Amino acid sequence: MDTWSLEKAGYAPSDAAADGNRFLCANGYMGLRGVPEEAGSERFPAVTLAGVYDRREDRWREPVNAPHGLTVWVSLNGEPMTADGTATLRHTVGIGYRHGLWRRETDFGPLLLRSTRFASMADCHLLADRMTLEVREAGEVQIRVGISTDIWDINGPHLSGFRFRAGEALRCEAETGEKRITVAVSQAVQADFEAAEDIRTGPDGLFRVLTRSVRAGESLTLSVYAAVFTSQDGPEPGQAAEDACLRAKAGGFDACLRKHRDAWEAIWRRCEVVTEGDDEAALAMHASQYHLNCVAPRHADNMSIPARGLSGQTYKGAVFWDSEMFFFPMFVHTQPEIARSLLRYRIETLPGALKKAEEYGYRGAFYAWESQEGGREGCTDFNVVDVFTHRPVRTYFRDKQIHISADIAYAMSRYYGITGDRSLLEEGGARVILECARFCLSRANTHMDSDEADYADVIGPDEYHERVTNNAFTNRIILSCLRSALHLRDVFRDCPERYDALLRELRYEKDLELIRSLAARIRGPRRRSGVIEQFDGYFGLEDCPLDTVRGRLRDPREYWGGDHGVAGTTQIIKQADVIAMMALFPDDFGDDEVARNWDYYEPRTEHGSSLSACMYALTACRMGRPEKAWDLFMKTASIDITGGGKQWAGEIYIGGTHPASNGGAWMIAALGFAGLRMKGGVPELHPHLPRQLKRLTFPIEAGGRGWLVEVTHEGGRILPR
Amino acid sequence: MDTWSLEKAGYAPSDAAADGNRFLCANGYMGLRGVPEEAGSERFPAVTLAGVYDRREDRWREPVNAPHGLTVWVSLNGEPMTADGTATLRHTVGIGYRHGLWRRETDFGPLLLRSTRFASMADCHLLADRMTLEVREAGEVQIRVGISTDIWDINGPHLSGFRFRAGEALRCEAETGEKRITVAVSQAVQADFEAAEDIRTGPDGLFRVLTRSVRAGESLTLSVYAAVFTSQDGPEPGQAAEDACLRAKAGGFDACLRKHRDAWEAIWRRCEVVTEGDDEAALAMHASQYHLNCVAPRHADNMSIPARGLSGQTYKGAVFWDSEMFFFPMFVHTQPEIARSLLRYRIETLPGALKKAEEYGYRGAFYAWESQEGGREGCTDFNVVDVFTHRPVRTYFRDKQIHISADIAYAMSRYYGITGDRSLLEEGGARVILECARFCLSRANTHMDSDEADYADVIGPDEYHERVTNNAFTNRIILSCLRSALHLRDVFRDCPERYDALLRELRYEKDLELIRSLAARIRGPRRRSGVIEQFDGYFGLEDCPLDTVRGRLRDPREYWGGDHGVAGTTQIIKQADVIAMMALFPDDFGDDEVARNWDYYEPRTEHGSSLSACMYALTACRMGRPEKAWDLFMKTASIDITGGGKQWAGEIYIGGTHPASNGGAWMIAALGFAGLRMKGGVPELHPHLPRQLKRLTFPIEAGGRGWLVEVTHEGGRILPR
Repeated sequence: MDTWSLEKAGYAPSDAAADGNRFLCANGYMGLRGVPEEAGSERFPAVTLAGVYDRREDRWREPVNAPHGLTVWVSLNGEPMTADGTATLRHTVGIGYRHGLWRRETDFGPLLLRSTRFASMADCHLLADRMTLEVREAGEVQIRVGISTDIWDINGPHLSGFRFRAGEALRCEAETGEKRITVAVSQAVQADFEAAEDIRTGPDGLFRVLTRSVRAGESLTLSVYAAVFTSQDGPEPGQAAEDACLRAKAGGFDACLRKHRDAWEAIWRRCEVVTEGDDEAALAMHASQYHLNCVAPRHADNMSIPARGLSGQTYKGAVFWDSEMFFFPMFVHTQPEIARSLLRYRIETLPGALKKAEEYGYRGAFYAWESQEGGREGCTDFNVVDVFTHRPVRTYFRDKQIHISADIAYAMSRYYGITGDRSLLEEGGARVILECARFCLSRANTHMDSDEADYADVIGPDEYHERVTNNAFTNRIILSCLRSALHLRDVFRDCPERYDALLRELRYEKDLELIRSLAARIRGPRRRSGVIEQFDGYFGLEDCPLDTVRGRLRDPREYWGGDHGVAGTTQIIKQADVIAMMALFPDDFGDDEVARNWDYYEPRTEHGSSLSACMYALTACRMGRPEKAWDLFMKTASIDITGGGKQWAGEIYIGGTHPASNGGAWMIAALGFAGLRMKGGVPELHPHLPRQLKRLTFPIEAGGRGWLVEVTHEGGRILPR
Repeated sequence: MDTWSLEKAGYAPSDAAADGNRFLCANGYMGLRGVPEEAGSERFPAVTLAGVYDRREDRWREPVNAPHGLTVWVSLNGEPMTADGTATLRHTVGIGYRHGLWRRETDFGPLLLRSTRFASMADCHLLADRMTLEVREAGEVQIRVGISTDIWDINGPHLSGFRFRAGEALRCEAETGEKRITVAVSQAVQADFEAAEDIRTGPDGLFRVLTRSVRAGESLTLSVYAAVFTSQDGPEPGQAAEDACLRAKAGGFDACLRKHRDAWEAIWRRCEVVTEGDDEAALAMHASQYHLNCVAPRHADNMSIPARGLSGQTYKGAVFWDSEMFFFPMFVHTQPEIARSLLRYRIETLPGALKKAEEYGYRGAFYAWESQEGGREGCTDFNVVDVFTHRPVRTYFRDKQIHISADIAYAMSRYYGITGDRSLLEEGGARVILECARFCLSRANTHMDSDEADYADVIGPDEYHERVTNNAFTNRIILSCLRSALHLRDVFRDCPERYDALLRELRYEKDLELIRSLAARIRGPRRRSGVIEQFDGYFGLEDCPLDTVRGRLRDPREYWGGDHGVAGTTQIIKQADVIAMMALFPDDFGDDEVARNWDYYEPRTEHGSSLSACMYALTACRMGRPEKAWDLFMKTASIDITGGGKQWAGEIYIGGTHPASNGGAWMIAALGFAGLRMKGGVPELHPHLPRQLKRLTFPIEAGGRGWLVEVTHEGGRILPR
């Protein structure tokens, strides 16, 4: 079995949305959805750009899809050769995870079409495709290759004012509506055959039409290079794109491919998890690592990763807490410069978080729940559409999911703990921690007749229950945030003047005292028979099986959460919440307590989020139940193979890849099965290898050096590299 | 025009629910819905008992309807003579407001049926009916007269274990399911004619069947007496009912009627509002005063009045804040012993309020939002049924409408201020104020980094907006509650030892200091261009016309409120909220400010509650716009004539009479048009008589003596009586 590649035979138009995700190519700068070269907008083709957002009219903001520079239509004797056409005898599409190579093969009878393409990991602006046509029947082949503007958009169109120019390269430029960002795409073609050439421009883009008479048995090969630049990258993006394109063409396809492969090999050397004993697991692990690595921001040092990666516009292309909780761990342990970029994004978006806090009447930093460029809040007050009335539903993710700020402080603090690199704290990280703690201080409720401080009207990780009080996870991670703020004095003990200056600048002295007091007063978890109550009153909710709740749905696309949802008034939860807390703060809880809570909450969890299974798996490992963890691991790691996960929230399409699950798969393997923990900057293992695996190895970086972790059923060891 | 009576011709079965309310007879102990004597349960007949509640299975608790002791079926030659039968030529039903006399006249052609009935205001257990049959065609008349158990129940049946006994009186006894309360009904009959008599028992009750041959031109008169007792009234309710019934029969119908009329005359002498100049207004005022007086608890000194009076089981027969805000004013100014009873009910139900606060984790007294016997909370977590999914909807009236406790303290304090009678405070009223203030203390949020105290996650009078922060009304009435608690020391300044003993008993010394501090810290109203923001963030909600919001309804019975309702995310409000605050605390606000807020909020008010128009009318008077107040007055005062008001909340029937509007009509006339205010125990007037009225007079009691208020366009005066 090839554990490095996924292939699918057949072409069902209804799979188009899911296939676009499963066979995605991406390089952190952009994502190219895995649909065939000739797919029109009804098949969801997209080149989704990282960090470029636009709003059209009063719809929600979303990332911009660039015109599609690898668009190719082939026809033979006037008959279009399209994968979903009637002429198709056989069609396969595949993705090679090792090097992010997308490939297809379509047999049209008179013509066999093969192609390979990639989003270059060596040059983030570059996309390339090599297509071979094996002609079996003589006639006239026409190849229309160019830059298509017939692209998929959820809330678009976002681009207007198109300018087209054709020379050796085609060039297309246009502007976004809201911020007038220029998006430029250039394309150049290299053919190993002669052909009549014509340029055509229309409302659907700019194309070069190659026409040639062919003989049976003849083989034509075409290399297509496309480059994308925006005005956010620098001046004259059109020229930059054209230059990049022609440079790639001059070097040739093989050279581009070689550099791309080399770049991927360098990535794998730093993070490859090798699982022995189960090929399905190996495939899933490769898929997960591919999908997470391919969306990592390697071209910038201040970007993060959207919740659906670069697979399209769903989730508004926004950065969620997934970033700190699920992407950060793999990167901080294997490629800390990427973890650093994720957190620099938070440092640079601090002004947005300060502004959001102020809007809600709080002090400090309240980070965006769905963060777009500059920390702009992408989350609206209405995130779900009611399937019965088709009206938008008020949700409270934006205003009540306050743990986001504490999550960021947690990761900021972990970065220093794991890497020992204080520079991030010096370059704004400490400020972020202090402003997040200040927000937590100002958001806390105290009471004149009681010493306890609490957090009312919040949403925890389990979003089905909105506006609850004293969510155990939230209170605990806020406590961690407060402690991180208090701990900074120790972190900077060798240069107290630096620390003091920061406190002075932020006028923080008084707040620090209050934070010390708040940390001692914050309400701890409440227990019943050793089970922690997820929030005040949770145990009083209807306690019925998941299937009962599911059975109450009157429409499969109904949103489960909130007061109107079937789950909101029951104990059924969307995802790990108390268990997520136990996974993040293992030292707070004994093994027995973890087990009791796991046994209580797991059957009550819908796992309606891709963030859920990982937390259950991590805690299952810790409890010594790796067999329970195994199923959750496979579910987590396979999600972008099966194309599973929820596709709809009410009437809103939410499909895409699942980088949080991808990161979760690494977390289960490394932190769960191997039981990797950092103690005082030194890695240690607490292995719980499931019986399905014989051996697990993976590299890590810690304390500024490289290690190789190896775990077998005999035990684990950490070798210097 | 007869301004003392309402009459309706014709009989449409679809009017049955509304007619039952409009033509209600009641005497505080029970309400007899105004449907014909022969109406079966599909026409909503009911004898609703005050203070007797039952739960069946898992449905919500509601008041118990007694078996119907004034049931009479007449047939002629085997043909049933029923108002909704095919034989009916003409039918009228009416209510005389002066003496609460229900009457009907139905012409069946061969037979003319006339009757008059009442719920005795002289003997609260007694119902009586006198029926006259004018025979126009000879034949055989059969009269089935007895105690029907085929009664209307929303969540019933509530009674079981029926025992029937027939002697001179019929007797029916049965028990409620939950608390095994015995409900006993007895009936006796007096006929001025000879008839064959037979007793019949069946699943529908116990009946006496009178059969007689009649001649054309003959007239038969039948007097029916029914008495109702329950085991809550004393031992042996069956015997008591039978005794009462036979006693009434022995005295005769005319004597019963005379005593009943005398009792009503005594009531009118104390409270009649005489309006001159507009007959419609006079009729509406009489209707309002009738409906409020007829449900007042005159048989007990510790009862209150349900939100729908005694017109049936809607609103669970529960006591709401309507009691303190809308019933209390007329009574405290005209019949203070009834105001006292309303508040004694709160004193006696304090234990229930202490328990409710504890359940929610607070101290002090959190009164039931829908208070049943013993202060038991009748409000469930699910008060609305979604019309699209037919699922119950989580509402927050029970847990978030905290102003109820402050409302009660407000009325308690007003009672003393208006009557000068301190005994109520001595007999538990002071304790209620202190425990309500303690609840407000414990419910307040403070913040470590700010001096302000606020109230988050509440519902104000405008229930369409759930779970808001710093509702202006709520914060203000809580401030009033805190001040009432602080003021008690002055109230008891002549006997400080009494006051000190109470504080000691309640361990209140420390709380009192905290309350003093809280009163200084509580967040005051926020303004924009002089308009007070109803709650934090209200001005940020969608601001669109009422009709736009109404136009979004997809089902006329949809619930408007909460996050799913069409109003919840807009500035459209259900009822007066900021304006209610201005009506209650007139000294806080200048005339201009009232006007600015009135002009802002009135167009944004749906007036979806019968509590709304009154508050707008009162403030309109104060602003010197009595013409605006006039329309609201007419709407308020006429509500139980027109049978208006909302009939449905989602899928739940909520029709009934509107005692809050009835009380509101008096408030507009006395406190608005006449501008009655108490200053230091002395009444004064600030008249704003609308042009439609020439003269307005009404009696009041204040400072222990009687006065007559007279207002004309020349001014007002207060004469001793």
